[in-house]
Amino acid sequence: MSKKLTSRTEDYSKWYNELVVKADLAENSAVRGCMVIKPYGYAIWEKMQAELDRMFKETGHQNAYFPLFVPKSLFEAEEKNAEGFAKECAIVTHYRLQNDPDKPGKLRVDPEAKLEEELIVRPTSEAIIWSTFRGWIQSYRDLPLLINQWANVVRWEMRTRLFLRTSEFLWQEGHTAHETKAEAVEEAKLMNNVYATFVENFMAIPVIQGVKTESERFAGAVETYCIEALMQDGKALQAGTSHFLGQNFAKAFDVKFANKEGNQDYVWATSWGVSTRLVGALIMTHSDDNGLVLPPSLAPNQVVIVPIYKSEEDFDAISKIANNISENLKAKGVSVKYDNRTTFRPGAKFAQHELQGVPLRIAIGPKDMENGTVEIARRDTLTKEIVSLENLISTIQVLLKDMQKKLFDKALNFRESHITEVDNFEEFKTILDSKGGFISAHWDGTNETEAKIKELTKATIRCIPLEVRQEEGKCVYSGKPSKNRVLFAKAY
Amino acid sequence: MSKKLTSRTEDYSKWYNELVVKADLAENSAVRGCMVIKPYGYAIWEKMQAELDRMFKETGHQNAYFPLFVPKSLFEAEEKNAEGFAKECAIVTHYRLQNDPDKPGKLRVDPEAKLEEELIVRPTSEAIIWSTFRGWIQSYRDLPLLINQWANVVRWEMRTRLFLRTSEFLWQEGHTAHETKAEAVEEAKLMNNVYATFVENFMAIPVIQGVKTESERFAGAVETYCIEALMQDGKALQAGTSHFLGQNFAKAFDVKFANKEGNQDYVWATSWGVSTRLVGALIMTHSDDNGLVLPPSLAPNQVVIVPIYKSEEDFDAISKIANNISENLKAKGVSVKYDNRTTFRPGAKFAQHELQGVPLRIAIGPKDMENGTVEIARRDTLTKEIVSLENLISTIQVLLKDMQKKLFDKALNFRESHITEVDNFEEFKTILDSKGGFISAHWDGTNETEAKIKELTKATIRCIPLEVRQEEGKCVYSGKPSKNRVLFAKAY
Repeated sequence: MSKKLTSRTEDYSKWYNELVVKADLAENSAVRGCMVIKPYGYAIWEKMQAELDRMFKETGHQNAYFPLFVPKSLFEAEEKNAEGFAKECAIVTHYRLQNDPDKPGKLRVDPEAKLEEELIVRPTSEAIIWSTFRGWIQSYRDLPLLINQWANVVRWEMRTRLFLRTSEFLWQEGHTAHETKAEAVEEAKLMNNVYATFVENFMAIPVIQGVKTESERFAGAVETYCIEALMQDGKALQAGTSHFLGQNFAKAFDVKFANKEGNQDYVWATSWGVSTRLVGALIMTHSDDNGLVLPPSLAPNQVVIVPIYKSEEDFDAISKIANNISENLKAKGVSVKYDNRTTFRPGAKFAQHELQGVPLRIAIGPKDMENGTVEIARRDTLTKEIVSLENLISTIQVLLKDMQKKLFDKALNFRESHITEVDNFEEFKTILDSKGGFISAHWDGTNETEAKIKELTKATIRCIPLEVRQEEGKCVYSGKPSKNRVLFAKAY
Repeated sequence: MSKKLTSRTEDYSKWYNELVVKADLAENSAVRGCMVIKPYGYAIWEKMQAELDRMFKETGHQNAYFPLFVPKSLFEAEEKNAEGFAKECAIVTHYRLQNDPDKPGKLRVDPEAKLEEELIVRPTSEAIIWSTFRGWIQSYRDLPLLINQWANVVRWEMRTRLFLRTSEFLWQEGHTAHETKAEAVEEAKLMNNVYATFVENFMAIPVIQGVKTESERFAGAVETYCIEALMQDGKALQAGTSHFLGQNFAKAFDVKFANKEGNQDYVWATSWGVSTRLVGALIMTHSDDNGLVLPPSLAPNQVVIVPIYKSEEDFDAISKIANNISENLKAKGVSVKYDNRTTFRPGAKFAQHELQGVPLRIAIGPKDMENGTVEIARRDTLTKEIVSLENLISTIQVLLKDMQKKLFDKALNFRESHITEVDNFEEFKTILDSKGGFISAHWDGTNETEAKIKELTKATIRCIPLEVRQEEGKCVYSGKPSKNRVLFAKAY
């Protein structure tokens, strides 16, 4: 903890990796590509979960749980979806180990215990869920069916990074079934909007809502809505997606319903998800060279109190004040920790809480006791002020609110100054390599041009923004006509 | 929903299976031995989770998340644990599918994508967690380490039953590390006690705390504490276990710490868990031939309001009253649902809510509006009463509290009347086959006798109760001397 972080300008990627480990958020595990989410990182995820879960339920969704495994025959039923995930699947082929006759004390796979049909560890659950929905849906009275699942999924990744890309990750996946196309499209948009609201209001990360191009769409979707965020290094990060799946899964799994007129029709579907990847986005958006910076809404501890003392009496007197402050803060719904560990010195505690991004740090020393004050240090600005005990609670409430807003404003400011309108390909490449960020440019709408630009620059079309201005133009690469700009960026 | 359940006396096992499906709690899935937990069943599990999570945090535990997979070399490190689970493991051997050249549109396992080392889908996480703890623990200052994980685990079961025994199940697993043996034993006992408190106070199920015999112990444990409950058919159900693991895992994974004197010592461990099996216990303890009976503490909806009307005006007027009642109940922390569906008639709603075990059902009809009353039906006793609107809220609060208590008392009464002290083996067999329940008998303390009794009667030693009376006697089977009675039963 004592060694300084690599700075962002020095090596952004290294800074991120170090920060995640040093702030005790997560670490790599003994399993290739899988991470261990440590208690402090998990506490942030729990806060995200609680708020998202509340928002899902408020919009009429119910939680359920479906199997981890997908039999191969179900997995391959929706061809595009299967094709999209086939190359990154963990596959269970056996169900028993036995003693290895050649190596005493060691085990080996029992060749007799081979499954008749292989099981795929779910990379996403459309297949298993739609095979189940078939039994749940008979008539329009069973619709809409609005289901969410909190679960782990596995996508075999070759190059992994803590939170951002791991072979196993935690997420929620919504799966809904509707009577009409319009209603399903509405649902997909609504949930993308829920994600945007959550990410902006709670995570203090501004996002652009848009739709994906065909080549970036979810495998099996008719339309993929998304929210795109911008990280401090100028790379974009897809923070959530919501898919209108048309009748693709209903057809693959033969899910029909009797409509109000008594006719049989295929059901319309959506699915939508956000994952522990959001923790990566949170870290990369707000943190600085001193460590993590957390928006108060998601900080496991919004306030930490550190006593500074020499004698036992001082410690007791400070503890009394600290406990009193804690109680008053908790009564106002502010989470607070009194760091009364005797095994660490104040300097070490300060360093730890700064690294771990606690929004407000209160220090109480003998001088403060004389004066009836405390010192408050603010994590985002690294500024300190002396505050009298009388005004402390309200001051803290104001500061937390202000910090939440300032973090968002700062990120928004950065994002806004990193959207560049570009009209020729040389400039496109120059901006991408120097300034980075989103490039707003015309595109001719073809997969070929999109692929060519990606090949030449590594930039992809992040989205066609929902709030797009109709504007005649020429494709930045091919020169062919275009009706609106799209957003390009290098992305995580 | 219209067809009646099989009665418990007719076929208890069939009654259970039908009830789980008809009450919309869970169903079998397309994956052998894995269940789908439906929204209503999952809502009960969420209530359990919320309360347990609160209790774990209150006792100083933090949540974290560890990988789903355990590399084979880690899995086999603690030999007894490995041996105990080797025969029921799902094993991942490949990480990619490819198009099947022989079957267009179908996929097959890509033989090129074979893992160098197989991955075991966790049946329990001691191995992966203790291999991680090694990096977290250096000195006594890092202890105790009090971690909990909410996760899915897989144990390949040949004979499965919804909730009670499924190949994949949801659970929490606590894993803690301590400086001393005494502290670890204390922790194992504490958590067993937390489980007992939860199951008795929230699930209204009386339990007996005890320790397991060697043959029933968790694989790798030094001592297994447990809570045992009794179902209505006289079979016991292990509702939770808490293990003192000694230094077994610390030694297998070389987890040492510098103690206060500066010497290196192996860490002492516990683990403890409860699972979705508890939902099965809940169902089997309280439910009746009409369906589910839920203790108010765990009911997703404690109260449901059903309007009875002929005209639109009546419906509007009743809805106004119902919404008013709902608001007042919610303000008191009572969960309530106004069932204003127009697609179902009152009779169908009554049947559904009875089947699904909603504790209190309020019906409001035109007569009630005239009289300023409602009808309350109580699920556990199936009794009805007319209550005036004035006293309604407080009446409901009293009824819910009373129901919670009565359900516990009834279950306790049943349990107490189904513990039979037996001193000869003929009587043992007779009681077991006629009355069932727990048989309190002397046992000579040997594995052989225990195994023989199991072979002859299918009864196992459920536990040696913690509150056991020292009493000289003779083993009910072998006649050898014994110092105390143990509890036998057939078990789920």
